[in-house]
Amino acid sequence: MALIVQKYGGTSVGTTERIKDVAARVKKARAKGDDIIVVVSAMSGETNRLIGLAEEMTGNPEGREFDVVVSTGEQVTIGLLAMALTGIDCPATSLTGWQIPIETEGFYNAARVKAISDKRIKAEFAKGRVVIVAGFQGVGCGGDIMTLGRGGSDTTAVALAAALKADLCEIYTDVDGVFTTDPGVCKDARKLEKISYDEMLEMASLGAKVLQTRSVEFAKKYKVPLMVRSSFNDSSGTMVSEEDQDMEKVMVSGITYNKNEAKISVVRVPDRPGIAARLFRPLTESGVNVDMIVQNISHDAHTDLTFTVAKGDYKRAIELVRSEAKEFEAEDVLGDLDIAKISIVGAGMRSHAGVASMMFETLAEAEINVQMISTSEIKISCVIDEAKTEEAVRILHAAFELGKDDVKEESV
Amino acid sequence: MALIVQKYGGTSVGTTERIKDVAARVKKARAKGDDIIVVVSAMSGETNRLIGLAEEMTGNPEGREFDVVVSTGEQVTIGLLAMALTGIDCPATSLTGWQIPIETEGFYNAARVKAISDKRIKAEFAKGRVVIVAGFQGVGCGGDIMTLGRGGSDTTAVALAAALKADLCEIYTDVDGVFTTDPGVCKDARKLEKISYDEMLEMASLGAKVLQTRSVEFAKKYKVPLMVRSSFNDSSGTMVSEEDQDMEKVMVSGITYNKNEAKISVVRVPDRPGIAARLFRPLTESGVNVDMIVQNISHDAHTDLTFTVAKGDYKRAIELVRSEAKEFEAEDVLGDLDIAKISIVGAGMRSHAGVASMMFETLAEAEINVQMISTSEIKISCVIDEAKTEEAVRILHAAFELGKDDVKEESV
Repeated sequence: MALIVQKYGGTSVGTTERIKDVAARVKKARAKGDDIIVVVSAMSGETNRLIGLAEEMTGNPEGREFDVVVSTGEQVTIGLLAMALTGIDCPATSLTGWQIPIETEGFYNAARVKAISDKRIKAEFAKGRVVIVAGFQGVGCGGDIMTLGRGGSDTTAVALAAALKADLCEIYTDVDGVFTTDPGVCKDARKLEKISYDEMLEMASLGAKVLQTRSVEFAKKYKVPLMVRSSFNDSSGTMVSEEDQDMEKVMVSGITYNKNEAKISVVRVPDRPGIAARLFRPLTESGVNVDMIVQNISHDAHTDLTFTVAKGDYKRAIELVRSEAKEFEAEDVLGDLDIAKISIVGAGMRSHAGVASMMFETLAEAEINVQMISTSEIKISCVIDEAKTEEAVRILHAAFELGKDDVKEESV
Repeated sequence: MALIVQKYGGTSVGTTERIKDVAARVKKARAKGDDIIVVVSAMSGETNRLIGLAEEMTGNPEGREFDVVVSTGEQVTIGLLAMALTGIDCPATSLTGWQIPIETEGFYNAARVKAISDKRIKAEFAKGRVVIVAGFQGVGCGGDIMTLGRGGSDTTAVALAAALKADLCEIYTDVDGVFTTDPGVCKDARKLEKISYDEMLEMASLGAKVLQTRSVEFAKKYKVPLMVRSSFNDSSGTMVSEEDQDMEKVMVSGITYNKNEAKISVVRVPDRPGIAARLFRPLTESGVNVDMIVQNISHDAHTDLTFTVAKGDYKRAIELVRSEAKEFEAEDVLGDLDIAKISIVGAGMRSHAGVASMMFETLAEAEINVQMISTSEIKISCVIDEAKTEEAVRILHAAFELGKDDVKEESV
C-alpha cells in the first residue's frame, strides 16, 4: 500500500463539474488500495475575486487580514470536494491548515512551512478516509492564518509528501506535463518523460509556468518524487526526480523564454572596488529584483555594467540607477524594454562540450544578435531583441533536435 | 469604560462600501473610549452562493463539510472589516470561531454555544485593538468547524456579550428597530422604544424578522441588554431588556402575523387517552413542527383536534395524519392552506383584562371569522382567512391605539 499526494490547481477545480471529475479521479486512485491525500487550490478566479475585495478596502491589503480573507478560497474547495467524494461513496475528510496543523513561520502572505503534524491525517487514514487538504495555507505560532504566497498549493503538496514520506506527489494541472518548450510557440514541442529537480528549477524560474519554484526546491531537498500531469486526460505526465545516468545522456532538455524583463546598462563606470555594491544597494532596498548581471573586462580603468530587472520595476530601477551613476560619474545609463531572455536548460551540459557554441551559431545564422550572455552549470541564457523571441525558440528547438520526430540520444 | 458588542447583519456589510460605513461607525464608538467587539455576518448573498455550490455537489449537503464551506462567508467579512478599520487608523484584529475559541456542541449546521474563552479577546483589548468576530461559527471538541444555523450571528453576538459581561449588545440591521407591526402593512406602525425579552420572543417567533429567536432566549437567560437599531442612520432603536414597571403600563406592544402556516383538523376523534400522542408522534418523528394545537370539549365521547404546521410541511403532515386517523376511525381529516395567524403581544396583558375580548370584537366588527384561538401569558393568536390578514393587522393596530399619533398610556 502506497501513500500518494495529489494536488489539483485552480483550473482543475474551476467549476462544480470539474470538482466532480476530480472526485472521480481520486476515487479511482483510492480503489487501488493506496492512502490518498488531495491538496486543492481555490476555484479559478476565486483568489482574484478575494484580492479584489481586499483592494477595495485599503490601498495596501497586505499582512494578517489579507491572509484571513484569501485563505477562504481553498477552504471552500476542500469542503466541496469532500462532499463530492462522500456523494460517490468514497469517504473523505477535509482539513484546513490549522486543523492538521501545518505550522508556518516568516511573513504573512509569504510564509514558510515549518512543521507538519501527521497525527490527524493518520487518524483519518486509519478510518479508511481520503484526506483533503487546503493548499496555500498554514497557521503561525500565535494561531494566525498565514498563506504561502501565490502558487503555494504546490508547496503544500510537496511539504505534505515530504512530511508523510509519500511514495509519489502528483501535481495535476491543465497541461500534459513539462515540455521541451512552449507548445504555443513551437508546434514541434515534445513532452518530457522525465527531468531532474535542477532542470525543473531552471525551467520553472525561467518562465515555464508548470510548478512553483519553491515547491521544486522543497522536493529536491527532501527527494520527493514529483509527477506533473494533466487533470483533463490520462496521459502519463513528466516525472521530476533526482538526476540519473539516463538524464546525462540528454544534452539539452528544454528551451525557455521570458519577455518580462528589461535591460539597464551603466556605461563607462570607474572600475574600482565598491562601485557595483553602491549601484545595486538602492535597488535591493526598494525591493527591485535584479536577474542577470554582466560585467566584462575593463578598459582605461572603466567598465560597462549591464543587468536585467522585471519590466514592472524598470522605471523605478532606472531612476535609482541614474541618480547613483551621476555620483560616480558614469558616462551614461541606457535602458531597453524590448528584450527577451532565451535559455537552454539541460543537466547533460555538464558532460557535453559545445552547447554554448551551438546556441550562438544557431542564433548568428538567423542574424539574431546576442546582447547579453549568462551561464550556470545546467543553463545558458541569452538576451536578444524581443521581436525575435519566437523565431529564436523555434530554431534552437530544431538545432538541439528536441522535436517529436527527432528524439536525440547521444551525440555532438 | 464600557464593553460594547456590535453585530452587523448581511445587508449592513453587503458591499465593500457598506463595510467601510460600518468601519466608520465602529471607529466612532471606539473613540468614546469603550472596548468594542464587532460580530459580522457574511456579505448578503454570499451564504446563499456557498449553499448553492454545496447543493451542486450533492443532493444532501449537510453535516461537517457543509459547515467548512459556509463558514468562509463570515471569515471574508471579518478580514475586510479589519482592513477597513486599520485603513482609517483604528487598529483591529479579526478572529474566527476557532481562534477565540467559541466552543460548540450538538449538531453540525445547528450547533449550540458551549463555552467562550475571553483570553484572546482581552489580550487584543489590552493592545488597544477592536476585536472583529466571525458570527455564526464555532469549533467542536474535535477541532471541527461548526455553524449555529441560519441567523446564528445574532446568537454569537449575544453569547459573546454574556461571556464577557458586556454593558450592551447592539444588533445593527436594515430596519430602525422593533415596530408595533409590519410598517409595510400598516403605515401607522410605530417604532417601540423598549420591549421585554418575553415580548421580543413572541414577536420574533411570530414572524417579526428582526432578531433570531434563540439569541433572544440567550439574552434573557444571561440578562444581556440588547439594542436593535439601524446601520443606515443614527436613530435610537429599540431596547430589549427585562420587564420593568413602565412596560406593564403598556397593555399591547405589537401585532404580528404569519402567513406561512397551514391548518389541519381531525374531525370526530374518539376522546380517549393516548389518541393525541398517537396522532402527533409520526409528525415529530418525520421532523414536522406543530405550532398551534387546539382541542375543545368533547361530545358523544368524540372531539375535534386542530393544529397548524408550516405550509412547506403541509402535504407530508396531512398524509401522515390521514393514515393515522384511519386507524382510530376519525370521521374526517380536513386541511386548509389559506390561513394566517394574527397575534397581539404585550407584557401588560398579565395585568389588564379585556385584551382578548377587544381583539375578538374588533375582528367581528369587520366580519373576519376567527377559526382558532390560542393564548399564552403575553400573547393571543387567532387563525383567520389569509386574504384578510392585512385588514386585520390594520384594524387591530388602530383598536389598540398603537399608531404614531396615539401612543397609549394606561386605560381600558
